Amino acid sequence: MELIETANAETVKRMLTGDPVLIDVIPAHEAIPTLEPGMILHAGPPITWDRMCGPMRGAIQGIAVLEGWAGDLNDADAKAAAGDFAFHPNHHFDAVGPMTGMTTVSQPMLVVENRAFGNRAYCAINEGLGKVMRFGGNDTEVLDRLRWLRDDFGPSLGKAIRHLGGLPLKNIIARGLTMGDEMHQRNVACSGLTLRALAPALAETSDNTTELSKALAFIASNDQFFLNIAMAMGKSITDPARGIKGSSIVTAMSRNGTDFGVLVSGTSDQWFTAPVEMPDGLYFPGYSEADANPDMGDSAIVETIGLGGFAMGAAPAVAGFVGAGAASEAGHFTRRMGEITTDENPEWTIPAMDYLGVPTGIDIRHVVETGLAPTINTGIAHREPGIGQVGAGVVRAPMGCFRDALTAFAGTLGVA
Amino acid sequence: MELIETANAETVKRMLTGDPVLIDVIPAHEAIPTLEPGMILHAGPPITWDRMCGPMRGAIQGIAVLEGWAGDLNDADAKAAAGDFAFHPNHHFDAVGPMTGMTTVSQPMLVVENRAFGNRAYCAINEGLGKVMRFGGNDTEVLDRLRWLRDDFGPSLGKAIRHLGGLPLKNIIARGLTMGDEMHQRNVACSGLTLRALAPALAETSDNTTELSKALAFIASNDQFFLNIAMAMGKSITDPARGIKGSSIVTAMSRNGTDFGVLVSGTSDQWFTAPVEMPDGLYFPGYSEADANPDMGDSAIVETIGLGGFAMGAAPAVAGFVGAGAASEAGHFTRRMGEITTDENPEWTIPAMDYLGVPTGIDIRHVVETGLAPTINTGIAHREPGIGQVGAGVVRAPMGCFRDALTAFAGTLGVA
Repeated sequence: MELIETANAETVKRMLTGDPVLIDVIPAHEAIPTLEPGMILHAGPPITWDRMCGPMRGAIQGIAVLEGWAGDLNDADAKAAAGDFAFHPNHHFDAVGPMTGMTTVSQPMLVVENRAFGNRAYCAINEGLGKVMRFGGNDTEVLDRLRWLRDDFGPSLGKAIRHLGGLPLKNIIARGLTMGDEMHQRNVACSGLTLRALAPALAETSDNTTELSKALAFIASNDQFFLNIAMAMGKSITDPARGIKGSSIVTAMSRNGTDFGVLVSGTSDQWFTAPVEMPDGLYFPGYSEADANPDMGDSAIVETIGLGGFAMGAAPAVAGFVGAGAASEAGHFTRRMGEITTDENPEWTIPAMDYLGVPTGIDIRHVVETGLAPTINTGIAHREPGIGQVGAGVVRAPMGCFRDALTAFAGTLGVA
Repeated sequence: MELIETANAETVKRMLTGDPVLIDVIPAHEAIPTLEPGMILHAGPPITWDRMCGPMRGAIQGIAVLEGWAGDLNDADAKAAAGDFAFHPNHHFDAVGPMTGMTTVSQPMLVVENRAFGNRAYCAINEGLGKVMRFGGNDTEVLDRLRWLRDDFGPSLGKAIRHLGGLPLKNIIARGLTMGDEMHQRNVACSGLTLRALAPALAETSDNTTELSKALAFIASNDQFFLNIAMAMGKSITDPARGIKGSSIVTAMSRNGTDFGVLVSGTSDQWFTAPVEMPDGLYFPGYSEADANPDMGDSAIVETIGLGGFAMGAAPAVAGFVGAGAASEAGHFTRRMGEITTDENPEWTIPAMDYLGVPTGIDIRHVVETGLAPTINTGIAHREPGIGQVGAGVVRAPMGCFRDALTAFAGTLGVA
């Protein structure tokens, strides 16, 4: 037991001492040199085409057309079924992606460097709300936006970030928590703080005020712009905490729309999976649970570091958006997650809870003992390809993967 | 009594149905045609030079040099004492100003139009934090910044706002209340939302990216940038509620650093004054209450419309900043102010209080009956001229002016 406590303390210490800085935007093939044409990285644990859900397939069709690997969506679908593309989790390549989480060679990737440990993590740029590829959208509007992000916006953003010398993220999160964000389903404050930090540099590095205005308006119009930055940050913080022998702390939670997967420090890169749950949420007008795809995305990396559903107490307004009950009771979610975590983050605190630190370091032993599954705030995609977001909600991680993880973890310590 | 209830309902209805839109930035002499050289508008009720506090005198010295009415600060001081300048309250000219509240002919004024009633209100641009004229600063750094605001930033901001067709403010306040602002001592969210709304238009109307970058950085670096917009908004909302016979609702609270003044709808433009109180607050390192000037500024116009100290429950983080006690108890201030107001604003609500509307419509009868003075969140200036801000705190309006107002109000209804 003392071995476990020591290992867990080291794991959480690495997470708490991470120093994530947004340093660049570069094409995925530069960020991830082993990424080749025909490879498609997706959210969640490994999965084959035949088991993929509708929006994941829709996104793959779209990204294959965008990359020029297929003539149209039908062609892409046929090629995917024929095994022409190689599918891998983002998590295997230092990357994460929200919802479907498409990463291919030409995608512009946000680069977050964890300056305390020297590692980097990557995430594509958030496309905005509505019909977008992360929710399975794949029509001309979706692809044209991705082309603009790749050819214009991404390079401009990268130039501005380099000009600025990088954007430290820890303080932005700290401020965002005092401004009602939980950095999963609510990023309006952090998106604004990021725009505020980048706007002068965007102007200084621009020679075209029309394009500049378009770039500023794109960031300004997307309350979730910061989500993908938070995700790359989460990945950069959790990666140095992986592979610590004897540690029962979760280093990733992730979903591909079919399976929920969890990684634990002491069991290194071994995925433990269980069928994903259906979010309990609120639907946009015209949609209902009958339209919903089950839980999806690498975005639960933010819960892994104490944000999202774990920081609900900081974001009473999100409680209504995700259908989590009375705004005044948002703090209950945070307190409950305190029961399955080992620490509070002293730098990321919640004013309304008298500066309680967000609960950090999910211990799979506590999850299994208490029966309290991690709470995740999530967007909800339509179950069919090509449609997009239909709502937002709260979902619980399935207990099965934590039980399996605990059994395997016990095995690493020689316990039957 | 029925007359009073009817009059009060009409007064508060006018306040709640106001539709404030930031429409322009123009020089004060254009905004206020009766403003002439040698006239200096200040915060608070009327006051003569001999009774003015240190920071107010410091600001007057500075603005006189800025306008070219004096060769240096000493000369300005002598001319002020000799009666060369005409002093009037901002409130007498559709204007407001934070702390010392200097308004003179060349100052660039934010213009807020209340589109429901057609009236306009004005406030100078917030200078930023630290050593600034509103806190009595008057050295070269302060004056140079004011020159830049007048000659470069103000005109650029005006152009962008006109290009945008105006910036509706009601929604910004509504969002800001979900993001931890109370719009008096905490405006970080609304300042960010304003930058977000204006940045694309600033870029589109700029032909110099270096100046543009400087303008964006100026807004981005000032968490209180929105305060002056909120104040002009408050004035634009309360002005149509003035002069309703039989109404016991407060239409302005204002302080000149010596006297606190209150205006009541039913007694129209008659000021009721009492000596200002000393804020109970927290001081910046190196300063203490011994350095503090008593309460000052037109900024309490935001409390008059339910924000600031009245909306403390929306801003738990401000409770610590102003020394108002535990963050988790910030809502108590809002509930207490509910006892002296007649309505809740259904459009400006506080998520953490389960979407309670901010308490609106201060009834002087309730103030006197309950003995609960309006709570005001305020900055604290150094008592000597030329130094600047030394802290922030909470101050209570002095009861004397409400008692006097109630007596006079009774007189308007023929009650002895």
